[in-house]
Amino acid sequence: MTNIENIINLLDEKKYALVRSILIDMNAIDIAELMEELNDEHILILYRLLPKDLSAEVFTNMESEMQEIIIQSITDKEISDLIELLFIDDTVDFIEELPANVVKRVLSSTNPEKRRLINQFLNYPEDSAGSIMTIEFMELKKDMTVGESIERIRRIGINKETVNTCYITGQNRLLEGEITLKDLVLADDEVKIKDIMSLQEDLIFITTDMDAEDVSNLFRKYSILSMPVVDSEKRLVGIITVDDILDVVQEEVSEDIEKMAAILPLEEEYMKASLFDMAKKRIVWLLVLMITATFTQAIIRGYDNLLAANVMLAAYIPMLMGTGGNAGSQASTLIIRGLALGDIEMKDFFKIVFKEARISFMVGSILAVINFIKMYFIDRPDNIFISVAVSISLIITVMIAKIVGGSLPIIAKKLKLDPAVMAAPLITTIVDAVTVLIYFSIAMALLSI
Amino acid sequence: MTNIENIINLLDEKKYALVRSILIDMNAIDIAELMEELNDEHILILYRLLPKDLSAEVFTNMESEMQEIIIQSITDKEISDLIELLFIDDTVDFIEELPANVVKRVLSSTNPEKRRLINQFLNYPEDSAGSIMTIEFMELKKDMTVGESIERIRRIGINKETVNTCYITGQNRLLEGEITLKDLVLADDEVKIKDIMSLQEDLIFITTDMDAEDVSNLFRKYSILSMPVVDSEKRLVGIITVDDILDVVQEEVSEDIEKMAAILPLEEEYMKASLFDMAKKRIVWLLVLMITATFTQAIIRGYDNLLAANVMLAAYIPMLMGTGGNAGSQASTLIIRGLALGDIEMKDFFKIVFKEARISFMVGSILAVINFIKMYFIDRPDNIFISVAVSISLIITVMIAKIVGGSLPIIAKKLKLDPAVMAAPLITTIVDAVTVLIYFSIAMALLSI
Repeated sequence: MTNIENIINLLDEKKYALVRSILIDMNAIDIAELMEELNDEHILILYRLLPKDLSAEVFTNMESEMQEIIIQSITDKEISDLIELLFIDDTVDFIEELPANVVKRVLSSTNPEKRRLINQFLNYPEDSAGSIMTIEFMELKKDMTVGESIERIRRIGINKETVNTCYITGQNRLLEGEITLKDLVLADDEVKIKDIMSLQEDLIFITTDMDAEDVSNLFRKYSILSMPVVDSEKRLVGIITVDDILDVVQEEVSEDIEKMAAILPLEEEYMKASLFDMAKKRIVWLLVLMITATFTQAIIRGYDNLLAANVMLAAYIPMLMGTGGNAGSQASTLIIRGLALGDIEMKDFFKIVFKEARISFMVGSILAVINFIKMYFIDRPDNIFISVAVSISLIITVMIAKIVGGSLPIIAKKLKLDPAVMAAPLITTIVDAVTVLIYFSIAMALLSI
Repeated sequence: MTNIENIINLLDEKKYALVRSILIDMNAIDIAELMEELNDEHILILYRLLPKDLSAEVFTNMESEMQEIIIQSITDKEISDLIELLFIDDTVDFIEELPANVVKRVLSSTNPEKRRLINQFLNYPEDSAGSIMTIEFMELKKDMTVGESIERIRRIGINKETVNTCYITGQNRLLEGEITLKDLVLADDEVKIKDIMSLQEDLIFITTDMDAEDVSNLFRKYSILSMPVVDSEKRLVGIITVDDILDVVQEEVSEDIEKMAAILPLEEEYMKASLFDMAKKRIVWLLVLMITATFTQAIIRGYDNLLAANVMLAAYIPMLMGTGGNAGSQASTLIIRGLALGDIEMKDFFKIVFKEARISFMVGSILAVINFIKMYFIDRPDNIFISVAVSISLIITVMIAKIVGGSLPIIAKKLKLDPAVMAAPLITTIVDAVTVLIYFSIAMALLSI
């Protein structure tokens, strides 16, 4: 931290050369982090102190608000220079966060070829393979020798995101195969690429419209460092490297977890999100669930005579609802996660329902027995039928909760809805109403004997 | 699928040469997947049909049960050959899943040097960097030239997990720097490694005892493909590549999600776990939460006179508890996730509590107003104070739920407990009891006016 204070002091004292010499030895990501602590004026000075290459790298790693501050403050010429140095996917990432008028200014400072590419990227759906791929890959031809290939990599490889895997393309950029830099280095110079490359039919590849989650499952399954992305005609349009996927995976998982907890997905980290934004993202579902709880209210009110005669019945509503909710969310959570990881498929639907039915019968029965014993010896209600009613309701509640929890996420996916939205809170509300209905029906039947 | 039936038919007809020719063209991961569909006898035949290199690769990608079947059925000589071909980390992964007597047999079939390494690996704590690293990395010396280095990679690189990044070590394997294969290829043959390598002080590195979650956060932050792992004396002991991390991340996330849903972590995929195992992993928390719900029961029973006089009060218990539970799990989920990603630190504790207090006041007030309007116009309770009591309880419940939900995970981490275990269900139980207590106290006070 003294490092930051030190740099702020030096900036205040206008000792810019010294600041520059400190920054040059630092990692771009750490510089971007450091800049978050500075005021707007210092941010701009510091940005301009950096050598061009480093400044582009630092820019890529900044928060989008800071990128906007810089873009708003630098000249058109500087914007154009910056975009020349950025990878196209990084350019697109920051453009997506800018207000429309600033986007216009950025695009008009860009050369036509790059502008065309940026627009193409902006058209890929969010979280599709197209939107996360990079187009800076190394292309080779199958008739080249290893020596020629290495020569080519030396000439133009410096600007590619990775050359660890090179791709062999034919006419119209049709993907024909791939070869690793390692294999090139291990082979003799005169060998032809086509004799040592992995053929297209043996490659695992991605299509531009593939979902990021499926892409990550492919990477996990095959443990590959990079995969080619092809369009519908098998033309190579980009590559995805596993380090890009790591970030996407964590974002997708955070989104899923937030949805399961009935929060609309946040775009920012907890500590950085504004109060108002946080409240907005949370109130939507709380409101929906509060209103839907009206069903449960209505059911309870429908039994007010029964309740008035046996006030003790009310004491078991929380336990029954809580157990039902927990049992349901156990099932739904496992299914949602399994769907995301590709471990569970649609065709498993009936197997899952049957499995949940059996698990819940086991679990529910054990809970019911323990509850009955506890009520018999400790709670001692005036009427033993209250204990019986609570225990039987417990089994039925747990079974319904687990079957609903296990099947709703799959049905959601079948209907092309997000399984994670069908999670705990929504299922709990359904299970709550059903629980109360079963409980009072059974109690009514038993207590009127 | 016809592929599998085809292979089963060929195995039945003992057309082994044909099976072998089909397998040789397949990906090792796909072969391992295919073997899961076969019976034990066919598994063994198929395993022996594979060329040695491929069989080791297929073995690595198998489920542990199948690895055990194979190890139990092959000769000591075959085990020894297999272990020679496996990477050390893969060997350790499968040994960890074997029963003790089989482990003994495997270790006695291994040469002493390898046995020593395996034992060392087995000593790293689970999910530590040491347990996931690989020791097959490429080592260079700083006084070598680029030409000599490439020569060395050609000679021994074939057996290394990755040569995309090579590590420069000094005496006693002290880490001195790293260089990418790309930089080697781009440089002239006569250049010395020390003149182009990245120096140790600029490297991001991992220590063997670092937690897998922290390792993955480092990979995400710096977007690197591989990182060196050093011991306490900065000696290079292994490397971690980002593709290994992807798997670890998904496993850790699954564990966290399961804990948040009150399930003891499963070791197997949903479809593969046994009924009994699933029931066992779920009943523990359901039982704990059912028993703790006794507090809420006791509170309700304490107010039975109030309830008997105003049966309608019972109808709002589910809505209040549900809203409290949801509000609490929203907060706890965000905090648990933030802690896992490293976005939230201990020192943010008071900031978080203050933030949750303000958010919950906003959210709670809006819910209370809407609830009051709804009750006034739709539910129309006999006594307007019931509406007032429910609405005020709603604000207080949401606030307590969010403050408890936001702070418990951090307190858990401070106490070196797992924050995920402090999640929704446990917090819900606490919030339930508090909610009911507040609700009835307020109702009692207002209705006796």
